[in-house]
Formats: sequence, C-alpha cells, structure tokens
Amino acid sequence: MSENQTPKEGCCCCSKAASIDPIFNPKSVAVVGATEKPNSVGRTVLWNLISSPFGGPVFPINPKRPSVLGIKAYPSLSECPGEVDLIVVCTPAKTVRGIVAEAVQKGVKGAVIISAGFKEIGPEGVEMERQLMEEASKSGLRIVGPNCLGIMNPVGGVNASFAPAVASPGNVAFISQSGALGCAVLDWCAQNGIGLSCFASIGSMMDVNWGDLISFLGEDENTQSIAIYMESIGDAPSFLAAAAKVTPKKPIIVIKPGRTAGAAKAAASHTGSMTGSDDVLDAAFKRVGVVRVTEISEFYSMFNALARQPLPQGNRLTVITNAGGPGVLCTDALILGGGVLASVSPETVEQLNTFLPAAWSHSNPIDILGDASPDAYARTLEVAGNDPASDGLLVILTPQSVTKPTETAEQLKKFGKIAGKPVYASWMGGEIVAKGQEILTAAGVPVFAEPDMAAKVFTMLYGYKKNLEALSVPGEESQSEEDRAKSRETAAAIIDAVRASGRTILTEYESKKLLTAYGINTVQTEIARTEEDAIKLAEGMKFPVVAKLLSETITHKTDVGGVKLNLQSPEDVRNAFVEIKTSVSNNPKWGPEHFQGVTIQQMVKQDGYEIILGSSLDPQFGPVLLFGMGGQLVEVFKDKALGLPPLNTTHARMMFEQTKIFKALKGVRGRKSVDMKVLENLMVQFSRIVAEQPWIKEMDINPLLASEEQIIALDARVILHDLNTPEEKLSKPAIRCCKK
Amino acid sequence: MSENQTPKEGCCCCSKAASIDPIFNPKSVAVVGATEKPNSVGRTVLWNLISSPFGGPVFPINPKRPSVLGIKAYPSLSECPGEVDLIVVCTPAKTVRGIVAEAVQKGVKGAVIISAGFKEIGPEGVEMERQLMEEASKSGLRIVGPNCLGIMNPVGGVNASFAPAVASPGNVAFISQSGALGCAVLDWCAQNGIGLSCFASIGSMMDVNWGDLISFLGEDENTQSIAIYMESIGDAPSFLAAAAKVTPKKPIIVIKPGRTAGAAKAAASHTGSMTGSDDVLDAAFKRVGVVRVTEISEFYSMFNALARQPLPQGNRLTVITNAGGPGVLCTDALILGGGVLASVSPETVEQLNTFLPAAWSHSNPIDILGDASPDAYARTLEVAGNDPASDGLLVILTPQSVTKPTETAEQLKKFGKIAGKPVYASWMGGEIVAKGQEILTAAGVPVFAEPDMAAKVFTMLYGYKKNLEALSVPGEESQSEEDRAKSRETAAAIIDAVRASGRTILTEYESKKLLTAYGINTVQTEIARTEEDAIKLAEGMKFPVVAKLLSETITHKTDVGGVKLNLQSPEDVRNAFVEIKTSVSNNPKWGPEHFQGVTIQQMVKQDGYEIILGSSLDPQFGPVLLFGMGGQLVEVFKDKALGLPPLNTTHARMMFEQTKIFKALKGVRGRKSVDMKVLENLMVQFSRIVAEQPWIKEMDINPLLASEEQIIALDARVILHDLNTPEEKLSKPAIRCCKK
Repeated sequence: MSENQTPKEGCCCCSKAASIDPIFNPKSVAVVGATEKPNSVGRTVLWNLISSPFGGPVFPINPKRPSVLGIKAYPSLSECPGEVDLIVVCTPAKTVRGIVAEAVQKGVKGAVIISAGFKEIGPEGVEMERQLMEEASKSGLRIVGPNCLGIMNPVGGVNASFAPAVASPGNVAFISQSGALGCAVLDWCAQNGIGLSCFASIGSMMDVNWGDLISFLGEDENTQSIAIYMESIGDAPSFLAAAAKVTPKKPIIVIKPGRTAGAAKAAASHTGSMTGSDDVLDAAFKRVGVVRVTEISEFYSMFNALARQPLPQGNRLTVITNAGGPGVLCTDALILGGGVLASVSPETVEQLNTFLPAAWSHSNPIDILGDASPDAYARTLEVAGNDPASDGLLVILTPQSVTKPTETAEQLKKFGKIAGKPVYASWMGGEIVAKGQEILTAAGVPVFAEPDMAAKVFTMLYGYKKNLEALSVPGEESQSEEDRAKSRETAAAIIDAVRASGRTILTEYESKKLLTAYGINTVQTEIARTEEDAIKLAEGMKFPVVAKLLSETITHKTDVGGVKLNLQSPEDVRNAFVEIKTSVSNNPKWGPEHFQGVTIQQMVKQDGYEIILGSSLDPQFGPVLLFGMGGQLVEVFKDKALGLPPLNTTHARMMFEQTKIFKALKGVRGRKSVDMKVLENLMVQFSRIVAEQPWIKEMDINPLLASEEQIIALDARVILHDLNTPEEKLSKPAIRCCKK
Repeated sequence: MSENQTPKEGCCCCSKAASIDPIFNPKSVAVVGATEKPNSVGRTVLWNLISSPFGGPVFPINPKRPSVLGIKAYPSLSECPGEVDLIVVCTPAKTVRGIVAEAVQKGVKGAVIISAGFKEIGPEGVEMERQLMEEASKSGLRIVGPNCLGIMNPVGGVNASFAPAVASPGNVAFISQSGALGCAVLDWCAQNGIGLSCFASIGSMMDVNWGDLISFLGEDENTQSIAIYMESIGDAPSFLAAAAKVTPKKPIIVIKPGRTAGAAKAAASHTGSMTGSDDVLDAAFKRVGVVRVTEISEFYSMFNALARQPLPQGNRLTVITNAGGPGVLCTDALILGGGVLASVSPETVEQLNTFLPAAWSHSNPIDILGDASPDAYARTLEVAGNDPASDGLLVILTPQSVTKPTETAEQLKKFGKIAGKPVYASWMGGEIVAKGQEILTAAGVPVFAEPDMAAKVFTMLYGYKKNLEALSVPGEESQSEEDRAKSRETAAAIIDAVRASGRTILTEYESKKLLTAYGINTVQTEIARTEEDAIKLAEGMKFPVVAKLLSETITHKTDVGGVKLNLQSPEDVRNAFVEIKTSVSNNPKWGPEHFQGVTIQQMVKQDGYEIILGSSLDPQFGPVLLFGMGGQLVEVFKDKALGLPPLNTTHARMMFEQTKIFKALKGVRGRKSVDMKVLENLMVQFSRIVAEQPWIKEMDINPLLASEEQIIALDARVILHDLNTPEEKLSKPAIRCCKK
C-alpha cells in the first residue's frame, strides 16, 4: 500500500472497534418502548432479553406502566437507576431523536435502533438520520440501525433483537443487511445445529458499519469466521481496511446480490442504496481476501463447514465412497473449483489392503464398494485421514441394500476430527439416511445433501487461503523514494498547467508526457505546428512515421480523420498535415480553432499484442484500474481484469493472471514471453498516477504494444475532473490504509 | 436431417421400444434365485414383487425348496406353469447363460439380470455377455442389465428390483446407470413425496439401452418427463435418435459426470466404459433437445419441479416475496439463466393496490412487505397468476416476526395450480417454516430451500423449450438434389484418386478442389511444377501472389518454409519457388521427393476475420464439426462451438451463436455484417462433405477469411482413413435418423 497516505477515518490503524463492544457485551440494557402488547416488537425484544440472561439487569422504559412483563418499568431513560450500557429503541421514528439525546445525557454507550422510518422513506428520513448522528456525536454514542432486527451475542447470552429465538452459541459471526434474510438464516442455523458467536442486523448502517463490525469481530475471541449478507457496501474504504486486516486470521464470506443489472435495479428500489458495479466489487473483495459466494445454498454450506471443521491447508481432497457415481460427480466439482484428488500414498494403500476387499479402487476416490460395512468405513477414514498427502476428507454413503447408514455414522464419529484437516460427509438419500446425518452433525461432521457441494465448499475455502498467500507475496519496488517524489511533482505540474489553461482534456502529447514522468515507455512523439516543422521532425526520425491531430478539445482523433499512418516520405508528411488540418477545419462539428497542429511519431512495427490499460471512476470504490486485451475485438471478447489502486507488482501480476491474453503474453506458438517485470512495473506506475493525481478522472493507454522486444504505449488519453470540482469529490483510492 | 440416409439400427423409425413393454408391464414374473436367506438379493426381489402387487403371479425358481416366503417354488423355469413374461435373475454370473437359454425356450419376453460379474470383470466377462446376447437373439428376448438394481413400474405396481422400497406412482421416469445413486435418488424422492412413472437401473446396458428406454418412455402415457443419471452413452446413434423423437413431447434431463479429465478417469475405472469428450456430449445433447444439469442439487430440483408443475412457456418469472434480499438473489439467478422479471401489467398493479399496503414495491419482484398476511399472499398470487405477461410464479416467504408460514401455505394451496404456468415456492428457514413446506408440497407446489435455485430451475426448463424452438426452425436448402448428387460424386472421385495413389493426405490443391466440389468458395489456386510455370501463372493473376509448397506428404507447410506471401513480381515468384524447393530438399526430415512443385494463389487482402472450420473423429459420436475464431490466438481464447453432421442452416446458425466471434461477424465498431446466409450455407456444405464422404477422417479450413465483401477459404487440409480401414470403422455420423 502507498506509504505517502496519511491515516484517514475508517483506516485499519484508527479503528473504532472497541467503542462498539458495549453493544455486544452490555452490563445493563434498557428497552425503550417495552410493552405487553401481543406480537409487538417492544414486547418481543424485552422477552428475548430476559429469557436469554446475559448477567445484567434489563430496564423496560414505558411512561404509561409501572411494570412490563412483571419487570419494574421506568417512565424515561433518565429516571432509570444506575448505569445503562445499551438501549434498544422500539418507538416510532419521530421519538428517536429525543431518546438519543437523553441517552447521550445519561452516558449510554450503545444503541440498537429497531424503529423504521428513516433513510428508506426519502429525504425527510435522511435528515432525521443526520440529526440522530449529530446528537450521538456529542458523547460518541454508537448506534446500530435504524431499521434493523437487532443484535445477538449468543455466547454472552445477549439477545437484543426481535428475532423469534436466540441462536445457540458457536464460532461463526453472521451480519445481515436484511432483517428478513437474517430471520431465515437464523432459523436454518437452528434447524441445522449451527451455533453463532454473534448476530447483527445492521439496518441502514447510519453509524455502525461493515468496518466497525468486521474490526470488532476480528478481535472477538469467540469468532472464528464471519458470514455476511450484504446489499450495499456503504463506506468502501472502511470495509476494505477492516477486511484486509481480518482476513489473514479469519475467513470472511459474503453473499451479495446485484450480479446482474436487473438485480441491481431491484436492490436499489429496496434499500435506497446504490449498488456499485459488480465486477469492481469482485476485484475489491479479491484484493482484501474476502470470499464471495453467489448462491444461497453455498452460503448455507459455508456455515455448515466453518462452524464444524478446520480450514483446508491445501487443495488435495480424499474421497471415500461406497459408490462410483457420486465420487465422480464430486470429482468434477473438485477439479472445476481448483482442487485435486489427493494421491493415495503406497503406505495408505498397503494399510487399506489389510482390511478392504481386493476389489476396492486402489486410488482416490477410495471406492470401498457397495457392501462396505460400518467398520470398513471407519477404518478407511482413520487410515486415509492420516495420509500426509491429503488436505481434507469427504465420506460419501449411498443407501444400498446392505448399507447401514446409521451404524456407519456411529462408527465414524470418533474419526470425525482430524487436526488441521476438514472432514465432510454426504449421506445421500432421504429417510433411510436421516438418522445417520443427525449423528454425524451432532459429532461435528458437517453433512451435505450433495457430495459435489461438499467438494465445492472445500475448494472455495482453499481458494480463500490461496488468494491470501498470493496477496502476501511482497511487491518489488523499482523506483527510489526520491524518484517517486520527482514523478509526482512533474506529473502534477503537467496537470496544473492544463487546468490553468482552462482545460480538462490532456492532448495526446501531454498525456504521453505524463506517462513519461512516471517512467512509462511511450513512442517518441513531437509537436509540429507547421508543415515545415512536421517534415523536419519526420526527417529526424526514421521513416515511416505517423502524423496525428494535436487538439486540446478533440479526443477521438480517428473520427475526424486525424490519424495518418505509415508515412513514407516528406511528401507524405506534408500531405498528411494538410489533410488533417482541412478535415478538422471543414468539420461542421468542429472548426479551425480545434486544430493546434499535429504530432509526428515514429511508426512502430505492429508485431506484438495490443493491450489496454485504463482507469475510470466507480461511484463507490473511486478509481478502478483495467488491464486487458486491446485491439478491435476488445468489446467482443471482454478479456479484462479490474483492480484497485495503488498496486504493487504482486497485485499487478494477479490482475494479469485473470486474463486470457496473459497466456499469449507469456509466449505461445513459439513466441517468447514479454518481459513480465517490465509489464508489472508499468502497471504499478500506471496505478500510482491514478492514486497520486486526484485530478485525474479517467485515463487510458490504448494500445500498449507488448512484444518480446519492447513494451510501449502508442496512444494515451487523460481526462481531468471539472475545474470547479470540490476536493472531496476528486479521485481518492478506496484502499488507503497507512502501512505499519 | 439428411434425406439420403437409409434407416439403420437404432433409428427412431425402426424402434424396438414395444419389445421391452413386457419388462415394465409383465403379466407374470419368475424370480430365478429366489431364496429366504436374510439380506440376500433373491429374497429382497421376491419380497418386493409380492409386497407391491402388479396383478399377476410371481414364481420363485429354486431347485432346493418347495416354497420360498410361503409361495410355491419351482425347480426350474421350464417347470414353471403357464406363461412367464419376465424373469428376474439373481443367480451367479456363470449360471446365467443357461437360464437365458431356458427362458428363450420357454418363450419368456424379458429378463432383468441383477447378477454381477460380466463386462466389469474384464475380457472374460465381455465374452460371457456375448454368449448371453447370442442366446437371447434366438427369440428376441430383451435383457435389462446385467449388474443392475432392477426395474420398477410404480404406476402398474411392479417392483422387480432389490431397492429398499418401491417408489410411489407419479409422472417422472428415472433411469440410472448407477444402482447406488439410484438408491439414493429413490430415497430422496420418497422423502420429498415425489412419485415416479418408472425406474430402471440399466447396469451394463448389454442389450436394453438408452435408446430403447427413451423410446419406450416416450410412448408411455404415465411418463411426462425423463430424468437420467448417465455414466456412458454407449450406442450414441440410438440415444440421439430416440431423444430427438421424444424431447419435443417430454423433457429429458441428464446428469452425467466427467466434465473434467480427472472425473473421466474416475468414471473409466468405475464402469469400464469410455467417457467421450465432454464438449462433444454437450453439443450432441443440445442437438437433440436434451437438458444437461451439472449439480446433484439441480438434478433433485428438476424432479421437484417436473413432478409437480407444468413447464414454463416463456422466460418471464413473477416473484412474490415478503423480503427484498431473497428477491434480489433470485433475480440474479433468473437473469444469469436467461430469464427476465415479468413486467407487472397496469391492470395487475391496480388490482393489487386494492388490498396491498401502499408501500408494496409496485414492480416485480412483488414485495408485499415484511408483515404480509396469509391473505395478502394468497390474493397476490391469485392476481399475479392471472397476468398474461407472466410465464411462471415464485412465492418466497421469510419467517419474520409477524409472518405466519403455516397459515400462508394453507391459504396459498388453492392457487397453487395455474393452467400452463408453473408455481414454485421457497419457504426459507428451518423449523419455523417446515410445516408450511409440507403443506405446499402436499398441495403440489414444489418447495425449494433456496429461491435462487427455483429461479435456476425455471430458466433451465425455459432453456429446454427455447432450444427446441430453435431446432424446429426449418433449414434452407440452397442446392438442388441433382447438384447435391454431383457434389458427392465429384468429391468421391477426388478421394478415390488420392486413395488409388496410395495416399491418405490430400494436397492443399486437392483439398480445395474437394471444397469447390461442394460449392465452397476457395482462393484461386494453380499448380506449378517449374519456375516458369509459376511465373506464368502469377502473371495471369494480379500481383501480389502467394506461393505454397505442393506436397503429397507434408501437411504443415509453414514448418518447412513452404509458404511465401506477398510476392510482388515475377522475380519474387522465381525466388520463392527456388527457396521452397531448396528448403524441403535440404530438410533432414524430408528431401527432394517430398517436393511436387508449388501452388500459386492470389494474395487475398487480409481485411476480415479469420475463422476455423474443422472436423475430427470422436470415438463415440463419430465425426464432429468445429466452428470458431481462427488466427494466432485460437488456442488462447478457445472461442469455438461443436456440432454433429449433418447440419442444416438452423443448426449452423445455432453453432455460430455459441461463439463470441459471431458478434464480430455480425458487425461491430462500424463494420458491416458478413453475409450470414453465405456463411450458413458454407457450414452446411462443409458438414455434408463430412457426412457424405466416409473416408474423410479429419478436415479443416484454416483460415476461412470472412468480411463483408467475401467469405473465402484460404487454406484447407483433408486427411483420410488408412487405406485398409474396414467399412464399419469409416466415419459415420451419429445422427442418422431417416426423415419421415
């Protein structure tokens, strides 16, 4: 990460995580709006809090009743005896500001605002939220919500929510941006015996946001992994900084709709939050080690695996089965997900030979045949589990005529936990295998209805580890600190000069100077204001040359006949100059004032691959980088990767690896590889321009010509923000954590 | 399909489907090997047959006992009184031949051979199968198996299997090539209340194969859809012919492992059957309207949808939900699968406004809010179900605080069947929604644990319909029957001449003549044996020209310096001739005898897209056609589609549409489209060469240059089978059904 950034709010080094601790570990709680009205939120919240004791007092606040559900009530928060750590607010929206003011007065540390009727109702609600934040900021009161289901700390016994039941204690934290989906997942977890370390319904994220919760859970010793249902990322820098800090210790799994334009529209109408471009989101998640799942069944399956078993340390899965078909189906899923079938070591084969029938498969999948006994299953798992060539095990059972699903599950129990390796099971079928599924689940072996899903989960969790490993490779620095400062200043001066002249578009000549300032190789380009200059410059180069329009206003030169290639002689150059000038001057859309001359450039032999490097502005993530195949079929093949600046050489390489053109760049059909170090450094420098020059709104190099001889920018385009753009609207990378 | 083919075995017009009817609808059954031994197959089969009465007698055959399970037993089949339609054989492999001979003698019509120990044990078993077939052919006895679980006709009450329980009657037929997976799916179906019209475990497919079963089930009035677990396709022409005939009436869903090389290996070791190239299989399925699913959860979900609801007639899904999040997640799945959110017509909006709260979404997904009552759900489904703009409905429920999952399910029941539109449900969660799930299921509304899976199933079934519609567009014929005969004869003469000269490789010149015979436009190419000839020919064309090696043995001309482009003058042509001759003559691998001269060709302006057209031989499907992007990055982008000959113009177009280069061919960035009619006809003609010339083993045009001005083959290569190849090993299209 860029060292020259100063810490900003939401930075991982300046986390406010500790301040939300009283919300999840309160010593006392007041329920504002507690009531006995059947089915009301105020009643459910109070009931939930007292029926799951956390060890402290619960105060109902109700101005009309001396007690609620048999507990002494107080007319207002200020009349409440002693300290109150947390309030849960269930009263109508219009009353909340006063309650927050009172809470600040009383020294309350946290609030969960369940009440709806804020941001989601429009501008009026937005203003109400602003007022709440103004009040809260007086004491640093932290607020979850509004418009949420509440929170739970099942380990500490806290249920400050109106969910139907408290989750059982466990090690997975679950944060949901939809209360409804939260209810469904909680109910699913309860049915499947999955315990949680934390549940938070974060509502409209007015104050406490992803960054706060992730930072908090990163330090929470009961939490081993974090599962998130996300509708909008909100404060992207805060999310990214927190996630980058936590993922090396604990996996973060996110399901987020909006993969398609249609879905994004549905999300917008639901939450009032804008959903950013989905490809950018994927790139951002990858950059900070977050795992994204796309299907609800995958999300459920992740809970199942994470709650019960360790993470795989490698991608080699051993499959034990009493039937070939399911073994092959899950092998497909394994391979497609990036896993491999573990090889079975000779020692393991030898041990298995001592008790398995001769016809067993002798390879992975370990098919122990249709009549496999419970004992055969158990001993095979024991032996295969000890094979160091395996990183995880999946035991599959199909209910054949002599199969004993229940007894087999019983016998497997004692081998269901292997240090450092996950053990998964798939008891396939219905009623016949149901009891066995229960037994395994209770023993901490996750059971998947389909073995291919088990293999998929294994590979996704391996993918998490592999991505983190790739990210952890240190980047290589090719520029000294002094040179970097010089690059920044030279480029800033070019940009300032353009702005001083009242323009927001750099000419091709200026754009290339900017690239050159950052050490990016561009084709030699000189300005000619007259025909004679043009010829003189061309003669100073080697023919053939190229003449291109120089204009401070026209960016798409080809559209106005502004590019003349392959000029072989001074006469060609003269003609080109005249033609370009005439073409622009006579163009009804433009005119002579848009012609500032031409540039004369060396004609580069077009032998190599055309690449595009770009940067554009995402409304949520700020500047986003693009690397991909250039050329005329760029729109057809869409072979591209996105990334967030700043990059180091590792990040650059990881972007390259996501494209197909990278295979060609590494050398195909007898061609040699392009110089990857040069390409990586070029990408890093390109990202630095974007990260360090906030006035740049869009920029691209198209094409960058890459061959084994050279990598060179043939054309470039830079667009600045409007001259009167306020500073906070300038380009600012979403990744801005200061380096420790 | 090609009209000039004569009916062959396995052809849809010559189906032997009727002959397997006695297997599924027997009037009497004998169990050979019936016994009382606990847990034995012979006991289970007998018990299954008598405990699920089909209306006829069951005869235990056991030489050692007067009765089995209280039923009078007979020492042998021949001593059995009266006619026996079906025998179920449970005795050891070595006894089966005699039993089959006896059955033939007795006039038995069908046999289910459960016994294992045949093909799967190696060459000895293969020979045993051959002998069985020899015996059976004497009377036309049809055999299911060996090495199978047996068969069921739940509607007719027949359970001739050793599965733990008979399936309940229904409308889905299930064929499994794995007995174990069959058991699991049967158990799953039982648990989920899904009835079957038929179950067949087909074992090693010695006799009764996919084609027989599909043809039979196509005519079976109880069967509305067919689900298949396939490990190997076996007799591909038979499968394809039967499937092509049945899919327009009934969907065929196949799950087949082997998508990856690793999986294919595991399959091979399991069944001893060879798994063909998976891409070819996909192309073949698409060609005959078969739907392939890849995940077991999708397979299960298909049963759920097909057993309970009609097929969608379009791709517009209406989603009714009490929560935004799940609605958006399933919208993602819908759009990615090729579906769309149905628009909500003004009349529907108006009707919904009369009873829904004002804040309902007013668009699809129809979000009826978190406090939606059972009545609101039911009325919304009723109203939205009648909207003609919708092709199907998905009702989602999440268990929020005031939600009534059970009552909602009760109220929805009466709207769960809408003529011509499927209604799906997703009651999300665990215990809280379990009762509601049961109620809906019992009412014939399939419940999916995840709403995105419901949307996926909807789009897959729509995809089935869409593919069939595309296939049903009649192709256009551009050649008269007379011209076609002439093409065939001219091409056959070229091939015969090459074979007569003892060669299997056509020169580029001959290859182009072959293409020309079928009306494919090739670049003008003339043979020059001497320098003078070469110059004369070049002068007869327009410079620049190309000179290429003419060799009857060397196919990769570039590798030996055999291609000289852009020759501008007679002098260039002379030099090129000499250089090519010298290069081949001095090449240590080759020598002067491999030089038969050069061809002189017009140099075509390289403005257009490079395409590759190819044909190669698949071990299971015979000749397979390839269409895709050509050029130097062909291996990097792998932008291709496969197809089976013969094609009509519709099939050709469907192949094109699977590639990205097709977008470019249709015109991008101001370029006009290539002439699609010409390209389609060219592909059809190419496919005809392959279908009509059995001696061709491999053939390709690379590149075919396509621009708006012309489509022209610049190079071509044809390889024949070895001269002594027996006729049955020559290329023969897998699609060979005669047209009715």
